[in-house]
Amino acid sequence: MVPVNLPGGEHKQPTHLARNPFGLIPALEDGDVTLFESRAISKYVAKKYKHSGTDLLRVGNEKESALVEVWLEVESQQYSPHISPLVYQYIVVGGLYKQTPDEKVIAEETEKLAKVLDVYEARLSKSKYLAGDFYSLADLHHLPYTYYVMTTPVKKIFDARPHVKAWWTDISSRPASKKVTAGMKH
Amino acid sequence: MVPVNLPGGEHKQPTHLARNPFGLIPALEDGDVTLFESRAISKYVAKKYKHSGTDLLRVGNEKESALVEVWLEVESQQYSPHISPLVYQYIVVGGLYKQTPDEKVIAEETEKLAKVLDVYEARLSKSKYLAGDFYSLADLHHLPYTYYVMTTPVKKIFDARPHVKAWWTDISSRPASKKVTAGMKH
Repeated sequence: MVPVNLPGGEHKQPTHLARNPFGLIPALEDGDVTLFESRAISKYVAKKYKHSGTDLLRVGNEKESALVEVWLEVESQQYSPHISPLVYQYIVVGGLYKQTPDEKVIAEETEKLAKVLDVYEARLSKSKYLAGDFYSLADLHHLPYTYYVMTTPVKKIFDARPHVKAWWTDISSRPASKKVTAGMKH
Repeated sequence: MVPVNLPGGEHKQPTHLARNPFGLIPALEDGDVTLFESRAISKYVAKKYKHSGTDLLRVGNEKESALVEVWLEVESQQYSPHISPLVYQYIVVGGLYKQTPDEKVIAEETEKLAKVLDVYEARLSKSKYLAGDFYSLADLHHLPYTYYVMTTPVKKIFDARPHVKAWWTDISSRPASKKVTAGMKH
């Protein structure tokens, strides 16, 4: 683990730009492989260690792996665009900067995220997890930002949907999830 | 190919919602597999037909496949957020609706896309394609929106960067690219 001093601008210095040319975190160095973009890093780790833990990508199964890819994209393209501004307003603006969050952004994005959760509720009434009846990287990718918004009033749109609520309780109480979230400040 | 009547709202009707619960296009039905999210669909097709064409995902090579995933994520998270509003303003608002594009959005997003292209320029000065010296799905995913903006004044930020320009000329002149873009209206 290599901490990068963001307030000091270390992420825009040559050493870090060599790891991630966009000057963002995270990056992963593993032997002669240097990767960036969190979702690509998690795929690499999931693929490399699939035999020593849960097979999070279902690589050998054409149909299951395709559905994992679909729901990975749903997190990336449908879920993240609405939960990200909520995390920013509540956790960064309100929590870190101690400023007043933008209530208009919060109202709009909460409403949009609720509509996404309607689709999740229907999906999770048919299968235990997003890609099917197996826990996958698609579920796991929801962990960090959802963990943060569950500490805010946005929690109510999750609690109002029984299958979404049960899914969140399930995935957030996995031992690996608990280990990760124990180290997340908010 | 199943056309969906968007102006008539067919994408929000049960038949299409069964294919894509978010009511968006595209969707793919292949035997008993139903997929949505364009990037997941293209991965499925690339994986299924890798032996009858270019191996676009480099599945068997740990390092190369990881770099393909990195640059697929770059398209998704860094490139698409800035080129999408430009396509919308020029091609949809200006072209399809015959209204006046929002010049403020165009100026802001063109500037942000230019910064992304600075990273591409540096990358493409070291390798012929984004993930390495091989054409991959990461390059291919840039095709549709880049094709559209190259018909607009945004073209100049591509032309101003010699490696980006050469890369675009290369990937857009592949026979498969020409076949696809020949069917794209703008």
